[in-house]
Amino acid sequence: MRNIKIAGYGTYIPENFVKFGNQIRHRVVKEDNITQIDMAVEAINKALEDAKLEIEDIDCIVSTSAVCAQLIPCTAALIHEKIAKGTNIPAMDINTTCTSFISALDIMSYLIEAGRYKRVLIVASEKASIGLNKNQKESYELFADGACAIIFEKSNDKKKGVIYSLQQTWSEGAHSTEIRGGGTLKPSMIFDQEHVSDYLFDMKGKEVLLLAARKLPKFFKTLFKESGLGISDIDMVIPHQASRALELIMKKLGIPKEKYIDIVQDYGNMVSVSVPFTFCKALEAGKVKEGDTIILTGTAAGLTANAVILKI
Amino acid sequence: MRNIKIAGYGTYIPENFVKFGNQIRHRVVKEDNITQIDMAVEAINKALEDAKLEIEDIDCIVSTSAVCAQLIPCTAALIHEKIAKGTNIPAMDINTTCTSFISALDIMSYLIEAGRYKRVLIVASEKASIGLNKNQKESYELFADGACAIIFEKSNDKKKGVIYSLQQTWSEGAHSTEIRGGGTLKPSMIFDQEHVSDYLFDMKGKEVLLLAARKLPKFFKTLFKESGLGISDIDMVIPHQASRALELIMKKLGIPKEKYIDIVQDYGNMVSVSVPFTFCKALEAGKVKEGDTIILTGTAAGLTANAVILKI
Repeated sequence: MRNIKIAGYGTYIPENFVKFGNQIRHRVVKEDNITQIDMAVEAINKALEDAKLEIEDIDCIVSTSAVCAQLIPCTAALIHEKIAKGTNIPAMDINTTCTSFISALDIMSYLIEAGRYKRVLIVASEKASIGLNKNQKESYELFADGACAIIFEKSNDKKKGVIYSLQQTWSEGAHSTEIRGGGTLKPSMIFDQEHVSDYLFDMKGKEVLLLAARKLPKFFKTLFKESGLGISDIDMVIPHQASRALELIMKKLGIPKEKYIDIVQDYGNMVSVSVPFTFCKALEAGKVKEGDTIILTGTAAGLTANAVILKI
Repeated sequence: MRNIKIAGYGTYIPENFVKFGNQIRHRVVKEDNITQIDMAVEAINKALEDAKLEIEDIDCIVSTSAVCAQLIPCTAALIHEKIAKGTNIPAMDINTTCTSFISALDIMSYLIEAGRYKRVLIVASEKASIGLNKNQKESYELFADGACAIIFEKSNDKKKGVIYSLQQTWSEGAHSTEIRGGGTLKPSMIFDQEHVSDYLFDMKGKEVLLLAARKLPKFFKTLFKESGLGISDIDMVIPHQASRALELIMKKLGIPKEKYIDIVQDYGNMVSVSVPFTFCKALEAGKVKEGDTIILTGTAAGLTANAVILKI
């Protein structure tokens, strides 16, 4: 057990939304010119307010966006500039794509437990809408923009914290979800409109679903075996809002409907924002509360699976 | 003290090089089509061979490249595909730009110490040459390509490991070193040749140098004060090979010439590869050896400073 607790949290979603049938997707309007960094700052300011803390009370800033704001420097440094300029607070990016927030929480819980940092701000912010491909209906109608920040701190209550965590990567799925361009493999400088799809989000939904369905049962078996817990010990599962197939996956894992949160209809897939955002929405709505044991979990491009069992 | 030791290491640099006066820069030739991922794989295979280990012996793969290979998935997943497909080994990116390797070592030493992972492979790989701006002589003549992988594992020798580590970020320098385009702020899709410099490396060398010179003395004072060590306790400083001004900075920090490694002339600045590469070259040349206390340190775009004091 690594004793941490939530000091505060904040979320941000653009006011603007589009509808695909009954599916609502909040997305930045081009004219508003709200950046990925702006959204992160909004969420962080709410989190600080919620925690009644100043930025100087934070010992480390971790950005977990799947897609960077600039190629250099890391996104955390650009966020730092807006909220922590003039301080010495270390800033870094941790990236496992959609589950980056879980990875960061997992990792940082060790550093908080060891006393390296007392208080860590983890922020996810994604402007997915700019990278969507209109010709790929499935992903085009799925993704949404937003940000979420949660401040974690050392807990003196020895019952609170990370009980167990697990990450596995199955690179059979490395190309099932990708944006091929923009980095060193297909740099921006060779961009041409004819190959625009190389620079847009490309998800082979069925491939991802099949690989996840094949790998996740064993992943969860390991998670429960190693943690010594079973689904009956868990009050709520907070899954990545990967797609409308969430119900299917949860069913396959034997997680009953009342034990997980599904807000895909209202918010879509917000990439690395989904997990913390869904968690915060559940806290706000009282669907999870102090003393509960929850699992933050999901699969990400890679394909990577993450899970953190947290007593809040 | 977090007890870790080196199990093995490997480096890779392209055979091809260019010369600017007496300055040698190894860079991938376009025709060779060697990717950032290829270079990482070369370095990892050498590290595994050096350690007499198989990939299955590795518990976590961390990629520390400053610039990603694709926007999605993370670079570590793409490396995983080439060396670990079919395994469950978790893969993730940790990014503080040029000092990412030090950040990853710093962080992962906590996870190794806590028993989460027994053995972690950290790999840095950069193809800086593709992003250089011919009109910016200073950076154009400075950067080079390459990769380096080091495997760290739990040490039973309680004298070996990370003695102390420190990171600070000073975002006054957030725009002193950048590649503005390629991410969400200036996406590839709006690329045009007229604004090509937005998609290339841009370093305001003097700005960086002035900020580093202003901030680093206090950073090192904190490092020594908190660790209880002084420069007389350190056998060798392995600095990021940031530029030819390295000597100037070391002098300002009171680190005598015989106590740091400067290979800028032969290898230039290899972004996140420089620190581990310089370390490995020093190990190979016997300039650092078992029992030595060393500091891995540097400044990165952000501006971020990192230091790990390691007894090897």
